[in-house]
Amino acid sequence: MPQKPSIPKGTRDFSPTEVAKRTYIMETIKKHFEVFGFQPIETPSFENSETLMGKYGEEGDRLIFKILNSGDFISKVDDVTYSSKKSSSLIPKISEKALRYDLTVPFARYVVMHQNEIDFPFKRYQIQPVWRADRPQKGRFREFYQCDADIVGSDSLLQETELVQLYDAIFSDLKLVGTTIKINNRKVLSGIAEVIGAKHLLIDFTVALDKLDKIGEDGVKREMLSKGVSENSIERASPLFTMSGSSETQLEQLKSLLSKSEIGMSGVAELEHIVKHVEDLGLQTAKLQLDVTLARGLNYYTGAIFEVSAPKGVDMGSIGGGGRYDNLTGIFGLKDVSGVGISFGLDRIYLVMEELELFPDEISVSLDVLCLNFGEAEGKAALKLVSQLRSLGIRADLYPSSAKVQKQFKYADRRGVPYVILLGDKELSEGQFVVKNMSSGKQTTYVLQNPEAFVQDLKS
Amino acid sequence: MPQKPSIPKGTRDFSPTEVAKRTYIMETIKKHFEVFGFQPIETPSFENSETLMGKYGEEGDRLIFKILNSGDFISKVDDVTYSSKKSSSLIPKISEKALRYDLTVPFARYVVMHQNEIDFPFKRYQIQPVWRADRPQKGRFREFYQCDADIVGSDSLLQETELVQLYDAIFSDLKLVGTTIKINNRKVLSGIAEVIGAKHLLIDFTVALDKLDKIGEDGVKREMLSKGVSENSIERASPLFTMSGSSETQLEQLKSLLSKSEIGMSGVAELEHIVKHVEDLGLQTAKLQLDVTLARGLNYYTGAIFEVSAPKGVDMGSIGGGGRYDNLTGIFGLKDVSGVGISFGLDRIYLVMEELELFPDEISVSLDVLCLNFGEAEGKAALKLVSQLRSLGIRADLYPSSAKVQKQFKYADRRGVPYVILLGDKELSEGQFVVKNMSSGKQTTYVLQNPEAFVQDLKS
Repeated sequence: MPQKPSIPKGTRDFSPTEVAKRTYIMETIKKHFEVFGFQPIETPSFENSETLMGKYGEEGDRLIFKILNSGDFISKVDDVTYSSKKSSSLIPKISEKALRYDLTVPFARYVVMHQNEIDFPFKRYQIQPVWRADRPQKGRFREFYQCDADIVGSDSLLQETELVQLYDAIFSDLKLVGTTIKINNRKVLSGIAEVIGAKHLLIDFTVALDKLDKIGEDGVKREMLSKGVSENSIERASPLFTMSGSSETQLEQLKSLLSKSEIGMSGVAELEHIVKHVEDLGLQTAKLQLDVTLARGLNYYTGAIFEVSAPKGVDMGSIGGGGRYDNLTGIFGLKDVSGVGISFGLDRIYLVMEELELFPDEISVSLDVLCLNFGEAEGKAALKLVSQLRSLGIRADLYPSSAKVQKQFKYADRRGVPYVILLGDKELSEGQFVVKNMSSGKQTTYVLQNPEAFVQDLKS
Repeated sequence: MPQKPSIPKGTRDFSPTEVAKRTYIMETIKKHFEVFGFQPIETPSFENSETLMGKYGEEGDRLIFKILNSGDFISKVDDVTYSSKKSSSLIPKISEKALRYDLTVPFARYVVMHQNEIDFPFKRYQIQPVWRADRPQKGRFREFYQCDADIVGSDSLLQETELVQLYDAIFSDLKLVGTTIKINNRKVLSGIAEVIGAKHLLIDFTVALDKLDKIGEDGVKREMLSKGVSENSIERASPLFTMSGSSETQLEQLKSLLSKSEIGMSGVAELEHIVKHVEDLGLQTAKLQLDVTLARGLNYYTGAIFEVSAPKGVDMGSIGGGGRYDNLTGIFGLKDVSGVGISFGLDRIYLVMEELELFPDEISVSLDVLCLNFGEAEGKAALKLVSQLRSLGIRADLYPSSAKVQKQFKYADRRGVPYVILLGDKELSEGQFVVKNMSSGKQTTYVLQNPEAFVQDLKS
């Protein structure tokens, strides 16, 4: 009884067309990463468990895929632990490695391990899959790619400016017109918590605010209240929810709101610097917009934070995000290295581009020419022709057997090949081959000795 | 106390230069895969355990990395199994997924699952990492990439011919001159086992022969003997070890040796067909050589088998291998689909290319221009210039702070940047910028309004 094959929940096979589309997005991202001076690194798919555990909160720890030790792993568990029969106690005894959960913690680990080989400021990009044992849903998978660009070892605000330009360059190149790059600053949020008298509850305040999109203003206020933020404080935070207008207008409002908070004012100054520089340089198709309710869940951010939303009318969460973190490598022993980075959500960008039909047609063409096969002698001549075309850089193929012509044409059709070559015994005896344009039906005859002529026509 | 970071045994971090070199090899392979009409697919990093287990022999099963179930996995183990405290009994209860061990079994699974969407013959390539809990040693890692090209759904020998050409095209393009593509046929091995009276011991015979490189002729004979192959049979197999000369000469010898074996003669005929076709078409830099002692360990091969050895003088095992398998998708319920494919060993190719110094120099240049930073106003002008260069496709960067000029130059030097831009207050006031060629020291002045002039010089 053969197995009926399936794949694990939350994972995907990618067909040739899907791979081509994903590659198109990734290569576009990669091209601009490199033009902006970022260099690629790669880290292993699994890390030692202690590198990952405890870095993403309790929820994160649960969602990390753990790898079972090899060999007779169970004999190494002491009897006391074993008899407890508790998963949490057993895990560290039977699993020493885990699949990476994001690219940021492995990057911090990399920087610390290789600090003596690295020339700071270090601009690195990394495009690799990550794994999370999350509940799968639309646009959320258990295996997915992250595309990250980070700079470590420079606290210059020029980096933030550049990252905004990088978002704009990539989304513009993908023809994803009308994205909004939302920006805020953790120091502004700290300032607000300070002036409303909730400084000690900054994290709860931030976590609640982060849910604004999902639970609305009332929901956020209710959650703040439940976490111990006073009614009075919440009342004083109200301007947060009504602030509107241009980034400049909002910055003016923030200045008066935060005038008493040193950290808050420093956040405002940073935002002002970035907004001004971006404006001077100009953006192609994206818009930079201050959003004081933008919080971003990850606690390691300490300065600017970013989030990119898809063009209006497309129902999709953020398609990118990032920010500045001042202490990330500290967990691995390297202090005072400031970093800032952004990430692109490949799967969501893919979905948005599908919805807006932004993939160029030529992506799904995987073969330029198919040569039909009319028998032993013809096939041999065809193979030679195909070899010549290939060495001229043409994606060419020979149908492997002399099946019925109709069947071969059907194959050409289903593969979406734009040109088919006919090289039957008549053509062979005349030293020619015929090229059929599959969309117009037009046929052109070429001399077998001179396939370059066809290649020239094909390229023009 | 911060953690001292490390990575798991047998895994690697790749630095920017290493990624660039690996990408160079992979992109070259990919280019030719596509020119030969192969289409990319991708499969998940982990598969359901039952997809992988039992496909690679007992040893393979042990080397597969298993992933621990999420949640309270241990509570789902029944008491009887748990009290046995046996790893082998516990594994299926606490682990349902495993990291892929190669790309071939996932491909077979893919073909069966997607058979209704696939147009056969299906030529697919796949370049993805695989994982094995093997003992790490030189050129052998626990995480490594495989680069596979397979055709399923065609039993035409033209495929084998094409695959030889594909090896030649890729190694030639990589400037890896002087590779030897060894070819043999499982049917020839079956024929030999038959005529020496060891048909029932074919697998043991093949496995022993496969070790010829490692344990020598005497070792192979000793192993055959220990597996029950008679002295007389071994004696009759002796011509195997002494056969030499051109493929044509050896084929003639095989014809007389195997004249009584139908399967053996069909193997010889296949080899003859492939050798003849390859010869007619010609190879660029590789040599095709019949090697009747070539066995290849994997049991699923049924026809032609290939193995590529590095140029003479380089101490390295095979850098590629493959063959025809007639029943691979059968394990998942799809019968009578013949397949043939080859694989490229990325890590070994990398090592060989390092040894022979075949990587082009320009690979390690990751930045075309670095613009120095002389302060607030100059930096702003520089950022504008850098933005313009980037939009013209130049990989350009601005040093993020106005550090000492010496420090900035040192950074440029260590990053191997060929050109440095100087845009100080003098240049700014005159509307110019100076480009310094870092290898010649020559300086050229350009007008700030016209960065295109510099780009033109750079590209020429």
